[in-house]
Amino acid sequence: MYDRVALIGLGLIASSIFWAMKRGALAGEVTGYARSSETRDTARRIGLCDRVCDSIAEAVDGADLIVLCVPVGAMGDVAGEMGPHLAPGAMVTDVGSVKRAVIDAVAPHLPEGVHFVPGHPLAGTEHSGPESGFAELFDNRWCLLVPVEGSDVDAVAQLRAFWEGLGANVEEMDPDHHDLVVAVTSHAPHLIAYTMVGVADDLRRVTDSEVIKFSAGGFRDFTRIAASDPTMWRDVFLNNKDATLEILGRFTEELFALQRAIRRGDGDHLHAYFTRTRAIRRGIIEAGQDTDAPDFGRGAKR
Amino acid sequence: MYDRVALIGLGLIASSIFWAMKRGALAGEVTGYARSSETRDTARRIGLCDRVCDSIAEAVDGADLIVLCVPVGAMGDVAGEMGPHLAPGAMVTDVGSVKRAVIDAVAPHLPEGVHFVPGHPLAGTEHSGPESGFAELFDNRWCLLVPVEGSDVDAVAQLRAFWEGLGANVEEMDPDHHDLVVAVTSHAPHLIAYTMVGVADDLRRVTDSEVIKFSAGGFRDFTRIAASDPTMWRDVFLNNKDATLEILGRFTEELFALQRAIRRGDGDHLHAYFTRTRAIRRGIIEAGQDTDAPDFGRGAKR
Repeated sequence: MYDRVALIGLGLIASSIFWAMKRGALAGEVTGYARSSETRDTARRIGLCDRVCDSIAEAVDGADLIVLCVPVGAMGDVAGEMGPHLAPGAMVTDVGSVKRAVIDAVAPHLPEGVHFVPGHPLAGTEHSGPESGFAELFDNRWCLLVPVEGSDVDAVAQLRAFWEGLGANVEEMDPDHHDLVVAVTSHAPHLIAYTMVGVADDLRRVTDSEVIKFSAGGFRDFTRIAASDPTMWRDVFLNNKDATLEILGRFTEELFALQRAIRRGDGDHLHAYFTRTRAIRRGIIEAGQDTDAPDFGRGAKR
Repeated sequence: MYDRVALIGLGLIASSIFWAMKRGALAGEVTGYARSSETRDTARRIGLCDRVCDSIAEAVDGADLIVLCVPVGAMGDVAGEMGPHLAPGAMVTDVGSVKRAVIDAVAPHLPEGVHFVPGHPLAGTEHSGPESGFAELFDNRWCLLVPVEGSDVDAVAQLRAFWEGLGANVEEMDPDHHDLVVAVTSHAPHLIAYTMVGVADDLRRVTDSEVIKFSAGGFRDFTRIAASDPTMWRDVFLNNKDATLEILGRFTEELFALQRAIRRGDGDHLHAYFTRTRAIRRGIIEAGQDTDAPDFGRGAKR
């Protein structure tokens, strides 16, 4: 589908793209680059990429698809470094969790004649690094493409077919709307999970070992979320500041209302609220984004 | 282990206890009672309990172990109804998520010579009702026993052996400390998940279908938590008010600090916080309460 693909950054997403490309025979040669020499060594050892390069310039040389898989805060620097080495007609895309900030950081560095179609696969695990990827990560998950104004229709279509080849369902979205949707469905929930795990850790009367031993219920799912890559998430929050803060503001407002209902003993309010949230869960199961299995996050054990 | 066991309330926990008792041959006859005739009919149809009774009095008659499996808010009424029918030497326990309030509600109704050892299995799924139980629910999970002052040592030991027979690991705890530990590990996380799901539902610019379609990340795990039984959770919050409100207060404080770090662009603060929460996750995996599989709550699909 592409003759030469360059993966810049070799973490969970890049390594999963690589194995999914191999599974689907979607690319000729795949080059890879990571800033850390340790990561490059690991990639060479495990056969991640056909050729691991020691510079961005070498990795993108002659590539017709370049996928930026670095944290959002590093996109601008990477784009600046590779810009002069891009071939006319090449497609640049990325996998960042924020789109407006990535467009602002990357677009100015790209020469005329290079296509730029930002993307965001809604898939991940709490693991990170070159050894964490697997070919099935994107299967039946969404990949949102966010074409900038004036994007070449054929180039967009080709990138869409590429993601479908990786196993994903593809939808196009406007960058600002994208950033709001993911603030609701991903960014705010992650910050909340991080916060709750931090609270538990601070509370000295409940020992760490108790928190850990007795975390069968909701807390265990929070720690799973809160174990995600710190650098990636720092950059997400700094680069999707407005939407995340807006959602957190609404969240705090609702939380205060529920706290007040608890304080006042208003059981009807609580029951009505909890009944409503149940319906959303059913919607997700019907939309095929999860299963109805009663595993509560421990499916792998049963 | 017990000749006659009575299960009062026939939801997820009671039905799982029943199937686990049968698996381990832990009881002679098992009777059951549920307030709703529909639930009793379902229980009879699926063979849940050896004998389903139409009154509490009939269910507890001659029982040497009575397990109260109703929502925390219903424990007092149930205890009042069964009290006059209990045989001397019988053991009464419960599975409620709150312990101080259950002790205050139940103990006054129990006649002299009846043992009372409250309990709380830290296990569950987001499903409820008599058909949701399964024998493996308690395997390798914790059950906390909260013996009241002056509990008979042999009776406590027998109940402990019973729970171990159901598959659980057992630990004893003081009631107030129990209520604080679960406020941290379960009650506050559940309220937060409910809140976040409610926020998403309120936000009109992001359509319901978008929230549902694009919930691959953290939000999906929240909806799973927030799909739990509304009546059970209403009663939990109303009956563990002080500890839950204290933890939520701390949570709000921490969340405000992180919000301020985002607003100010303080990436170091965010990175340090996220790195710390990662360590807690590792502790949980090492404690054997979860697996390291990268399923992010969708294990059943892979």
